Amino acid sequence: MTLRKEDDFNEWYIDIVEKANLSDKRYPVKGMNVWTAYGWKIMRSIDTFIRQELDATEHDEVCFPLLIPETEFKKEKDHIKGFDSEVYWVTHAGLNELDVRLILRPTSETAMYPMFALWVRSHQDLPLKVYQIVNTFRYETKQTRAFMRVREIHFFESHTCHTTEEDAQRQIEEDVEILDRLAKRLCLPYSLLVRTEWDKFPGAHYTVGIDTVMPNGRTLQIGSVHHYRTNFSVPYEITYEDENGEHKHAHQTTYGMSERLLGAVIGVHADDAGLIMPPDIAPFQAVIIPIYSKNNADAVRQEAQKLFALLTAAGFRVKFDDRDLRPGNKYYDWEIKGVPLRLELGGRDIENGVVTFARRDNGEKGTIDASSAPAGVDLILDAISAALLDKAKKVQQSHIQDIDSIDDIPEDRILRFGWCGCEECGHRFEDAHDLKILGTPFIPEEFDGKCIICGKPAKPVYAARTM
Amino acid sequence: MTLRKEDDFNEWYIDIVEKANLSDKRYPVKGMNVWTAYGWKIMRSIDTFIRQELDATEHDEVCFPLLIPETEFKKEKDHIKGFDSEVYWVTHAGLNELDVRLILRPTSETAMYPMFALWVRSHQDLPLKVYQIVNTFRYETKQTRAFMRVREIHFFESHTCHTTEEDAQRQIEEDVEILDRLAKRLCLPYSLLVRTEWDKFPGAHYTVGIDTVMPNGRTLQIGSVHHYRTNFSVPYEITYEDENGEHKHAHQTTYGMSERLLGAVIGVHADDAGLIMPPDIAPFQAVIIPIYSKNNADAVRQEAQKLFALLTAAGFRVKFDDRDLRPGNKYYDWEIKGVPLRLELGGRDIENGVVTFARRDNGEKGTIDASSAPAGVDLILDAISAALLDKAKKVQQSHIQDIDSIDDIPEDRILRFGWCGCEECGHRFEDAHDLKILGTPFIPEEFDGKCIICGKPAKPVYAARTM
Repeated sequence: MTLRKEDDFNEWYIDIVEKANLSDKRYPVKGMNVWTAYGWKIMRSIDTFIRQELDATEHDEVCFPLLIPETEFKKEKDHIKGFDSEVYWVTHAGLNELDVRLILRPTSETAMYPMFALWVRSHQDLPLKVYQIVNTFRYETKQTRAFMRVREIHFFESHTCHTTEEDAQRQIEEDVEILDRLAKRLCLPYSLLVRTEWDKFPGAHYTVGIDTVMPNGRTLQIGSVHHYRTNFSVPYEITYEDENGEHKHAHQTTYGMSERLLGAVIGVHADDAGLIMPPDIAPFQAVIIPIYSKNNADAVRQEAQKLFALLTAAGFRVKFDDRDLRPGNKYYDWEIKGVPLRLELGGRDIENGVVTFARRDNGEKGTIDASSAPAGVDLILDAISAALLDKAKKVQQSHIQDIDSIDDIPEDRILRFGWCGCEECGHRFEDAHDLKILGTPFIPEEFDGKCIICGKPAKPVYAARTM
Repeated sequence: MTLRKEDDFNEWYIDIVEKANLSDKRYPVKGMNVWTAYGWKIMRSIDTFIRQELDATEHDEVCFPLLIPETEFKKEKDHIKGFDSEVYWVTHAGLNELDVRLILRPTSETAMYPMFALWVRSHQDLPLKVYQIVNTFRYETKQTRAFMRVREIHFFESHTCHTTEEDAQRQIEEDVEILDRLAKRLCLPYSLLVRTEWDKFPGAHYTVGIDTVMPNGRTLQIGSVHHYRTNFSVPYEITYEDENGEHKHAHQTTYGMSERLLGAVIGVHADDAGLIMPPDIAPFQAVIIPIYSKNNADAVRQEAQKLFALLTAAGFRVKFDDRDLRPGNKYYDWEIKGVPLRLELGGRDIENGVVTFARRDNGEKGTIDASSAPAGVDLILDAISAALLDKAKKVQQSHIQDIDSIDDIPEDRILRFGWCGCEECGHRFEDAHDLKILGTPFIPEEFDGKCIICGKPAKPVYAARTM
C-alpha cells in the first residue's frame, strides 16, 4: 500500500525514509538510528557544501572533544537551565566512578569557550572563526522521527569571536548569505525569524530561527544563528587587549544546522513514489537504463557504457543499471531513490543518435542529442533544481496567511499578524491556540497592523505549529 | 630551547606537536585533546585516502550510533572481558537514571552486529562490506600522548561478513593491499605480525597487528586486521541461507586504523626543526615566499601571484606567504609546519626565468624553470615522497636485530628470534625482559632457528618495547 503524502504526512514520511533505505531505526536505542549507505552519502554531500562555504569565508575547521566536564558546563546560568533536562551523563569509566561527571555535548559552547579564553589574547587574534561537523546528543522526550528529532544528532556548528557587537552582527549577515547559497543547492525555501525572548537559545542575546514549511503546514526549524554579545565571554573570560592596551570581552556568534536539512529535503520534495533528490546533493544525478530488444544487447550495452563514460568524465554522478531486470522494475527502484534524471537507451534511440530522458520531479519525457549528452544533462539538471525550488517556494507561500483577529484562526497555516512585543500578549496568544510564535522577520517586512491581542502598535510576527 | 629527537624522543614529540599546533592538550579532560585547524586538516586528508581506498574496494560508508546498550555489549564473552575496564558508561539522561546503561563505543562490533543480523538473510546479501570514520572512546590508564594514546580516538573501522572462512581470508588480503597503498602515501614503513593468542583482539580468531617503528626503537601499532571466523556471528546470530536453503553463520573480519597514523607520521618523519609532511597529505605542499629588494616589490609580487595561480590551477595545494615579515621568519614558520617544498622568488630568479626551491626533507636547494613550474614541482614532490619512505625504511630496518640467546638482549631494538609457539615459552620471554612479543610474520619469512627458550623447532617471531 502506498501512503499518500497529502493524507498523512507523518506516516508517509516514516514510510519513505524506510523504503528509500536512508536510515534504519531498528537499532536498540530509541531515537538513535543507523545511517545506511544511501542516507549517509546524501548527508555527506550536504556536509561538503557546508565545508565549501565555511572554508571560503575563512572559518577554520576544528574538532573538539565530545565530553564536557560538569564544571565547565555550568558556568553560564541560562545555558545550563536550558539544557539540564536534555543531556546524557557519563558517570563511570571502566570500573571507577568519575570525580567530575561528564556530559555528552548537546552543542559545544561550553567545550570551546574555555579554550577560546586561552586562544584569544589580542585584537589581532580576532575575528576567531571556527566550525566543526560532529555528533551531538539530546535526550529528547518527544516522539522521535528520523533526521527531524533524534537523540544523536549529526550537527554543524560554527563559533566566532569579534572585537565589537557590530562586527559580530556582520558575521550574522555573512551566516545568512551562506544559508542562502546552501538552501539553493537543497532547493529549500526558508524564513528567518527572530525568536521570542522565551524561545531564544539559552544564553543568547538574540536568536534567528531558520524555518521551512512541511506539507502539513507545520514548520521545521532547520538551523539557527545566534548573537551572544558578551553573555558567554564574561563567564568564560574570553578577553582581548585592544589597540589601547585595554582588556575587553569578545562578542560572539554561533550558527548551527543539522541532519534536519536532510529531513527537510525529504519532507519538501519527495512524493508518493519516493524521494526526489535535488541534483546538487543526489548520490546519483542520472541513471542510465539500457532497453534491450532481441539481438541488440551488445550494441545497446556498448552505447550505454559510452554514455556512462562520457557523463562521468564530464563530472556527473551517474549509475549504469545493467542488472538482469525488466526496465520497469529499474524505473521503480530509482524513483524510490529519487534519482533526478533517468536516461533510457534503446535500439531506436541509437539509430536516431539520441538518448531518451525522464525527469523525476515532473515526469516530463523527451530526448537529448547523444553526441552532446553532457550539455543536455546539465541543462535538464539545472531546470530540475529551479523547478524544485520554485515549487517549494509556492507551497511555502501558500501556507502563509495574514490574520487580524484571534477569533478566526485557520488550521494548518503559518499565521502572520501584529504583536506589540510584550510577553503577556505573546503568551496569551500561544496558550490560547497551541501555536508557537516563531518570531519577527529578521529582514524587515512592511506592515501596518495592530497587536492582535491588545491593539497597541505592533510589528509583524509569524506563528505556526512546529514539527 | 630546541629539543633533540635523538636525545629524548618523548619530550621532543610533545614539543613538536605543540609547536606545529596540531592539537591543544589544555582541554580540561585528560587524554581528550582539541584538534586544531592544522592537525585536523592533515587528519582529514588521511581520511580522504582511506575513503578512496574503501570506496574503490566496494565498501559502503555508514554511520552507527555512538551509544551501545550494555545488553548488546555483553553478548560475546571474550570481547566484554577485553573492554570491561576501558569503557565509559552513560548512566543518566536528563534527570532520569537509565534502565539500560549505555557505553560509548570503544569499537563497533557490538553496535553493528545486531543490525547485521537483520541485514543479512541470504548468500546474495554477502559479502557485506561497510566502514565508518567516527569517534571512539577508551578509558586509558597509561600516560596519554597526542594522537598515540588518547581517550577520544578518531577511528576508521571496516566490518565485513562473508559466506566462508576462505572468503573472509581474501578480505584480509585485500585489507593488506589497501594498507600498502595508504602507507605509501604517508611514506610509512610497516610490519604485519600475527599477534599472540593472549594479545589478539578480544573475540578474534586471529589478529594481524600493523606496526611501525619510532626512532627510540619502540614500535607503535598503527592499525590491525582481524579474522573473527564465526566468533561474533554465533552470539549475534548473523546467519544466511546458502544456495541449498541451509542456514549458516557468516564469517567476519574487521580492519581498524586511527589517528595514530598521524602520530606515526610525526614520529617517523619530523626533525628538530619541525614537522616534515609527506606531500600527499600536506595541507600545503609548497609555500611561495617572495624575496623583495628595493623597488622590485610590485614585479616580484606579480610574478609570485602568477606562480601561485599556475600551481593552484595544476592541482597543487600552495600557500603564497606575503606577510610583512623577513623571509627568514617565514622559512622558520613553514619549516615547523613541515611544508615539503619552499619556493623563493626574487629579482634575480625572475630575470633568469627560474624559481629557487628548497626541500624540507633534506635541505637540498636548486632552481626550476618558472614556465614549467608545475612539472618541476611534481617531480620534486615525488622525489620527496620517495626519499621519506626510503629513509624511514632504512631506519625501521636498522632497528631489527636477530638474536639467538636470551642472555644477550640489546636495548632499543626490535628482536627477531625463534619461538616454538607455546604460551609458556612466550610468557617466560616477555616476563624476563619487559618486552612484548609482537607476533609471527603474516607474510612468511625464511627462518631456521630454534625456540630461544626451549630449543624446540620454531617459527620466527618479533619482540619489542611498544609506545
